[in-house]
Amino acid sequence: MPFRAPLDEYRLLLNHVVDYGQVCGTDRFAEATMDTVEAVLTEAGKMCEEVIAPLNRNGDLDPAVLENGKVRTSKGFAEGYQAIADGGWISMAADPEYGGMGLPMTVTTTVNDMLAASNLALQLNPLMTQGQIEALEHHASDELKALYLPKLTTGEWAGTMNLTEPQAGSDVGALSSKAERNDDGTYAITGQKIYITWGDNDFTENVCHLVLARLPDGVPGTKGISLFLVPRNIPDADGNPGVANSLKVVSLEHKLGLHGSPTAVMQYDGAKGWLIGKEHDGMRAMFTMMNNARLGVGVQGIGIAEGAYQHALAYANERKQGKTPEGTIIGHADVRRMLATMKAQTFAARAIALAQAVAIDMGNATGDAEWKARAAFLTPITKAFGTDTGVEVANMGIQVHGGMGFVEETGAAQYARDVRVTTIYEGTNGIQAMDLVGRKLMDGGEAAYRLLDEIEAFAETAKGDLPDLAEPLWQATETLRETTEALVAMTDMQDRFAGAVPFLRGFALVLGGYYHLRAALADEKAAKLARFYIARLLPDHAGQLAHAREGAADLMALTPDDLAV
Amino acid sequence: MPFRAPLDEYRLLLNHVVDYGQVCGTDRFAEATMDTVEAVLTEAGKMCEEVIAPLNRNGDLDPAVLENGKVRTSKGFAEGYQAIADGGWISMAADPEYGGMGLPMTVTTTVNDMLAASNLALQLNPLMTQGQIEALEHHASDELKALYLPKLTTGEWAGTMNLTEPQAGSDVGALSSKAERNDDGTYAITGQKIYITWGDNDFTENVCHLVLARLPDGVPGTKGISLFLVPRNIPDADGNPGVANSLKVVSLEHKLGLHGSPTAVMQYDGAKGWLIGKEHDGMRAMFTMMNNARLGVGVQGIGIAEGAYQHALAYANERKQGKTPEGTIIGHADVRRMLATMKAQTFAARAIALAQAVAIDMGNATGDAEWKARAAFLTPITKAFGTDTGVEVANMGIQVHGGMGFVEETGAAQYARDVRVTTIYEGTNGIQAMDLVGRKLMDGGEAAYRLLDEIEAFAETAKGDLPDLAEPLWQATETLRETTEALVAMTDMQDRFAGAVPFLRGFALVLGGYYHLRAALADEKAAKLARFYIARLLPDHAGQLAHAREGAADLMALTPDDLAV
Repeated sequence: MPFRAPLDEYRLLLNHVVDYGQVCGTDRFAEATMDTVEAVLTEAGKMCEEVIAPLNRNGDLDPAVLENGKVRTSKGFAEGYQAIADGGWISMAADPEYGGMGLPMTVTTTVNDMLAASNLALQLNPLMTQGQIEALEHHASDELKALYLPKLTTGEWAGTMNLTEPQAGSDVGALSSKAERNDDGTYAITGQKIYITWGDNDFTENVCHLVLARLPDGVPGTKGISLFLVPRNIPDADGNPGVANSLKVVSLEHKLGLHGSPTAVMQYDGAKGWLIGKEHDGMRAMFTMMNNARLGVGVQGIGIAEGAYQHALAYANERKQGKTPEGTIIGHADVRRMLATMKAQTFAARAIALAQAVAIDMGNATGDAEWKARAAFLTPITKAFGTDTGVEVANMGIQVHGGMGFVEETGAAQYARDVRVTTIYEGTNGIQAMDLVGRKLMDGGEAAYRLLDEIEAFAETAKGDLPDLAEPLWQATETLRETTEALVAMTDMQDRFAGAVPFLRGFALVLGGYYHLRAALADEKAAKLARFYIARLLPDHAGQLAHAREGAADLMALTPDDLAV
Repeated sequence: MPFRAPLDEYRLLLNHVVDYGQVCGTDRFAEATMDTVEAVLTEAGKMCEEVIAPLNRNGDLDPAVLENGKVRTSKGFAEGYQAIADGGWISMAADPEYGGMGLPMTVTTTVNDMLAASNLALQLNPLMTQGQIEALEHHASDELKALYLPKLTTGEWAGTMNLTEPQAGSDVGALSSKAERNDDGTYAITGQKIYITWGDNDFTENVCHLVLARLPDGVPGTKGISLFLVPRNIPDADGNPGVANSLKVVSLEHKLGLHGSPTAVMQYDGAKGWLIGKEHDGMRAMFTMMNNARLGVGVQGIGIAEGAYQHALAYANERKQGKTPEGTIIGHADVRRMLATMKAQTFAARAIALAQAVAIDMGNATGDAEWKARAAFLTPITKAFGTDTGVEVANMGIQVHGGMGFVEETGAAQYARDVRVTTIYEGTNGIQAMDLVGRKLMDGGEAAYRLLDEIEAFAETAKGDLPDLAEPLWQATETLRETTEALVAMTDMQDRFAGAVPFLRGFALVLGGYYHLRAALADEKAAKLARFYIARLLPDHAGQLAHAREGAADLMALTPDDLAV
């Protein structure tokens, strides 16, 4: 069941749904015309289809392992990585000054989407490096930039992120890794970090770790944390990887999925590190990356949804069972319902992600505060809805396969196993939802209402052409507006948090309806899918938003004792 | 994280929700008083806690394997099986004439629930035997009953079900296994069967296969299928396992979960079999077992939901992260929401299953057609909602664990992997839903409306005491009634099938609200959980039922070509 790059859908989205034209209409991205984008997507799509996707099962069957302190990666992953690096896909969005392509995040997002659909375990590696490049571009000294960025953009070196410790997961501020000042301006880093994605590999010359640690005079909590670049091999005078640093991979996790991606426990024993940004200001650098990183993870969910959908669709088109006009199970209404749900929900999640990417690009290109607020507002929705969609669609993909879905050889289960962590890492989806109802409504709902205004205005004008789609969308948006107002009015944060996850879900469903409607006006085939989404999936918003309005009292009245068995 | 038998919840359900008193009020089950039930549950619960649950990880880590044509089972499973057999739990519901306890299905259901929660892979073995005992009791000759039932009830021999073939999954009628008449009244069975749960083991003296096959004069389709009992070892004159039959385990599947349960490809090469029931009438015997078998699988989902819930609850009570009054993550509103959702939905699914079990018992004890119709109507709901609940709750259990949920050592992922097949086998949940809107509405909705009348009447009387719960439940029931009427009015089955799954879900949600309300009137703690369910989970019925009313036209308008990438 080969993967096929969904280029038609990207064209529809970029041209008619998220208005990519405004991005290449800016000076900054003037060169990234739709023709250029077309060439980029075709090239990246070809690589994903021919090189990356065929390696996906290898990662599962031949997991990365730790042998004598070294990580040995899955068969073929080195070649796959090289193809990604050679194509320039690691540094698509990076600054051309250091070898990047300088493409808009919108384009990067579609390429990352295809890479994730093809092989999530492998895609994680360049995704980590992309984040590191971004952090260094914004916060590293010119000297560090000159030394590291050319190596990272070519993929000769890889990057990782080291945040989590056993007692400091969602609560990053609880970390206990220490940094001490050396005499030469560098720092000595000591501590243990867990869940380090691609903590090492056997196909790049060097691995560069961005590590959060606390200086002796760092206050407790997030405000006392600094960020350090800690290379596995310390660059020598020529900038080549030199002597080994005082760090090691202690072990790799045995995980539900992503077996091809080594998840390491890292030990730092006075390892030499270089400060990124200012002392005690590490969280700010982290926050700089956050919109992009969360977009990146949301897109992982969307990519897996695409892969799982295509896999299930191929099966449904082949499997004969019962009498149908098509001769295969795709003729059964319930199988059709599952496939349509998978496709329609993936489309919705992808449109939201691309709308966020456009907002990031427009914010970067214009400096406009409204675009920046839009990007920030959409971030938790992209991340949580994108990854929930990945989990749900992959799960439905198993169901389409019937008994074969439970047999590992089929490959359907791998999508579900691989994607499962995406709702957890880079901030759990619960934390995304809390971010949405907390920080992202701190403007009194301004960014939210601006989005709702846009949807209602569009639905209003679409009522003439597609009243059966525009009317229920308008109604749903009104319910969402009322719920948003109700949340904004809640002064006790616990009340908002109690309904945060269903609120985010309800918001995403309405946004999805909006983007489906936009597509429907442009394309007849898309209109059929939009009709399915708006009539059958959008109604779920009502239950979600009812849940969201309930507040915390009755929930927290269920004490731990009440919940005990 | 040890398993704890949820005896308080069973007491609440039996005494106040599903009115078990009417079951032991019948002559047939007069001996199964609540005192007896209490003793049974305590004893079975103790075994599950102390013997069965501790073996659960073994099944995952040390899978059943095929060695030289023999199945070697997971470490400890033989001892676990023996404990189940020694306790009489295999034959709880079986006829006392052949060594069974003759307990009501309601009681059997709670014990199976605990066994599934403790160790689903192992529980599958006695569950298969229970089904075989039931089939033989109803359809075997007295001679076969006398020979096989005493061995099966004691657990000395185990039973399996052989239905599926590569080209005949959901469409059983497409099977091609052949049966030929021998001169001595026996039959020679030839063919390949797949997905045979516990196709062999190394801890029972014999394994008895119930095999569907077609006689030379059997018509194509389900009406030409006969059922045969085909023992691995042919009983000798003394009834002991004698010479090997002409059958073998060809291979075991490599599955997403249930590694402790060997899923076999079976090959029959003229194996000697004995007819069960009449020639060409094999499907009738299958249908006899169906209500109980589907109840059994629904309860597997509920059991796993219980196990996953307890596992997540223990973690939430221990894990420190962020500041909460409790000092652990259970103080976070979103974690509380997840745990409450898990508990409330599991309660709803369990209540539905027990209501079905009571209906089965009452139908058997009284012969009353309304009870039989009630049991038949609830069957697909129990199976699909119970197993969906298992999948959803286990998935939420992973989420509660955060990053630890993705690490296999934690055990949270195993619940999600193990339970995943339950929405597929014993008729996929899509097929359950088609059964509900098809066969189960063939009475013009009579059984459905009788249930809705009961709910509305109860809600009406509860409006005085608990108006905030009774009123929304009454409203939801009205919406469900209107939707049921709309489905009954659809003359093209495709229209019903298009909305079958959301209709079943909506029906289950309303039923769950009803049983929560019953519990709420009896118990203050239960009222808190009911309030959570009715205010926050029940509203989902509206979206589901809106989807259900949409019919097939717009769905089937999405052609395979429209769905292509």
